[in-house]
Amino acid sequence: MQERLNIVPFVSVDHMMKLVLATGVERFLIELAAYIEEDFRRWECFDKTPRIASHSAEGVIELMPTSDGEAYGFKYVNGHPKNTRFGRQTVTAFGVLADVGNGYPILLTEMTILTALRTAAMSAVAAKYLAPKGARTMAMIGNGAQSEFQAIAFKAILGVDKLRLYDIDPSATARCQKNLAGMGFEITACSSSQEAVEGAEIVTTVTADKQYATILTDNMVGPGIHINAVGGDCPGKTELHRDILLRSDIFVEYPPQTRIEGEIQQLDPDHPVTELWKVITGQVPGRSGGRQITLFDSVGFAIEDFSALRYVRDRLKETGLYEELDLLADPDEPRDLFGMILRAAKPTPVAATVGAL
Amino acid sequence: MQERLNIVPFVSVDHMMKLVLATGVERFLIELAAYIEEDFRRWECFDKTPRIASHSAEGVIELMPTSDGEAYGFKYVNGHPKNTRFGRQTVTAFGVLADVGNGYPILLTEMTILTALRTAAMSAVAAKYLAPKGARTMAMIGNGAQSEFQAIAFKAILGVDKLRLYDIDPSATARCQKNLAGMGFEITACSSSQEAVEGAEIVTTVTADKQYATILTDNMVGPGIHINAVGGDCPGKTELHRDILLRSDIFVEYPPQTRIEGEIQQLDPDHPVTELWKVITGQVPGRSGGRQITLFDSVGFAIEDFSALRYVRDRLKETGLYEELDLLADPDEPRDLFGMILRAAKPTPVAATVGAL
Repeated sequence: MQERLNIVPFVSVDHMMKLVLATGVERFLIELAAYIEEDFRRWECFDKTPRIASHSAEGVIELMPTSDGEAYGFKYVNGHPKNTRFGRQTVTAFGVLADVGNGYPILLTEMTILTALRTAAMSAVAAKYLAPKGARTMAMIGNGAQSEFQAIAFKAILGVDKLRLYDIDPSATARCQKNLAGMGFEITACSSSQEAVEGAEIVTTVTADKQYATILTDNMVGPGIHINAVGGDCPGKTELHRDILLRSDIFVEYPPQTRIEGEIQQLDPDHPVTELWKVITGQVPGRSGGRQITLFDSVGFAIEDFSALRYVRDRLKETGLYEELDLLADPDEPRDLFGMILRAAKPTPVAATVGAL
Repeated sequence: MQERLNIVPFVSVDHMMKLVLATGVERFLIELAAYIEEDFRRWECFDKTPRIASHSAEGVIELMPTSDGEAYGFKYVNGHPKNTRFGRQTVTAFGVLADVGNGYPILLTEMTILTALRTAAMSAVAAKYLAPKGARTMAMIGNGAQSEFQAIAFKAILGVDKLRLYDIDPSATARCQKNLAGMGFEITACSSSQEAVEGAEIVTTVTADKQYATILTDNMVGPGIHINAVGGDCPGKTELHRDILLRSDIFVEYPPQTRIEGEIQQLDPDHPVTELWKVITGQVPGRSGGRQITLFDSVGFAIEDFSALRYVRDRLKETGLYEELDLLADPDEPRDLFGMILRAAKPTPVAATVGAL
């Protein structure tokens, strides 16, 4: 890319859809998962902080920053459960990647779609280390906006090709089933959570209500399964009965955030959990026995968004799927910001060529 | 504005310059100062937090969020003192305003220029309450990117029309003098800080080095003046000798942030300071005597950026100086994010008209 200091590449929703389609959803998820795994392997280089949340009666707005010392990334994301009633998304997001050396942003991108993809890629990365080997059957409870992405990520990365779907809204199940048609899945629409988990080696819970709920009760969870708990992701919002947690080995992204937001908010603050990056780097075992219940208590952490931003940034040059945004003031003399405004009033040959330097 | 849920208005650098020029710098500063004052009057409604900083050897990247319960705003801003060596700005910024009710962004704007304007407007608001009545002479030490904005704000809001300029780099003083020519100032270029402060009723310090410096020493500060200390704005960066602080009544924006970043980082953590909003609301006096030295220890707080975002947002409709950014995914059915991607592959009449709903 040509160096014009005022310009930041911008990936719109339209360009993101084109990028996903041009890449193929499966390949996108596989490549994104590789970026996430790479960043989890160098977990200790990152500046980490729980997300900065601004809560209101209607929902939450969060900023999720992190840095590896060379790049800095953050995501803006909201969560407003009532939004769908008014035709809006529950969750929308955008993000920025910047150069730590000079502080200049190098990418602005939509992240509503990208967050759905990274959440699914993250779940599949965790399951790669935690699910029973050769698992092919996944129950998916909650068939909303995140469900197809989860299904495709588990197929692409683990080879899961049998889905057992359940949602309290049968039309959500029907839509998920329709959207996944022709992609190589054997899909069973179930009429209860109980029915959905029958024979499943992996159970993904991904419901959307902002409240304590019990999507899975203790009797529904047999030995040997992996639970991918995606929907319990903010204070006051959980999906699993506490007794399941007590029988499971629990794996988390970043404990200071998960203790506040995840399923484990139901447990004592010192209940033992394992950080997933330690499994990925081989410091501690993941699945260690056939009857073990593993639980990935996923809440979504800034490093995963950072990986996603890096991935999108790395794809820009090859695809050209971005616009150029005039985001940064770039006076011809850096200390002369006011002079730049004055010169904008009556463009001179010098000012007119600045953009092309 | 037409309600298209995927669109966020974007104010580029070019549009910001046009907005400032179309409005007039003086009027822009006067109106922006009114927004700042309005928000300082309702200080207690705001969610406040010190900015979230990511420090590196080269500089800092910060996020500055705040909310009044109806709108949420944040600014991304970097500070990299060595940037000017490579033709870049020391400070660049952009910001976002969002609707707390649904979490959707309603404005994305450049804030490099806007930050310069809001910092100057803030200084003038503080001086309105703290400077000697009828002050017309201001010394300005540090004649870089912020200097012209400070000068014009003090002229527009307080009637200051005599400037005494000093910078260690005489070319900076010359440029400031040239840029302000014909705007009604009587300008004296001085050869030292000592000379600059002679006869000044207001002293503005606005230098850029990221280090402890002593721009003003104790003997240079006579009774009755107002010091507008703008440049001491991050940990390890101060401009005033500690003895000046001990003789002054100190006014600050948000103490938890100023204690870390401002001139008062040189003092005990319990040294008494006054919050400016309490002066503006009349709860405590500002200037109370002719020999009193008042010091506004300005570091820049998120609420000022919020005011600036509100002001720009309110001017959009009338001026039309913005672009429409396709930032937010807006599937025709909110829960069907994946279906939106599928439909983008083969546009149907339904999908094709979504943008125009």
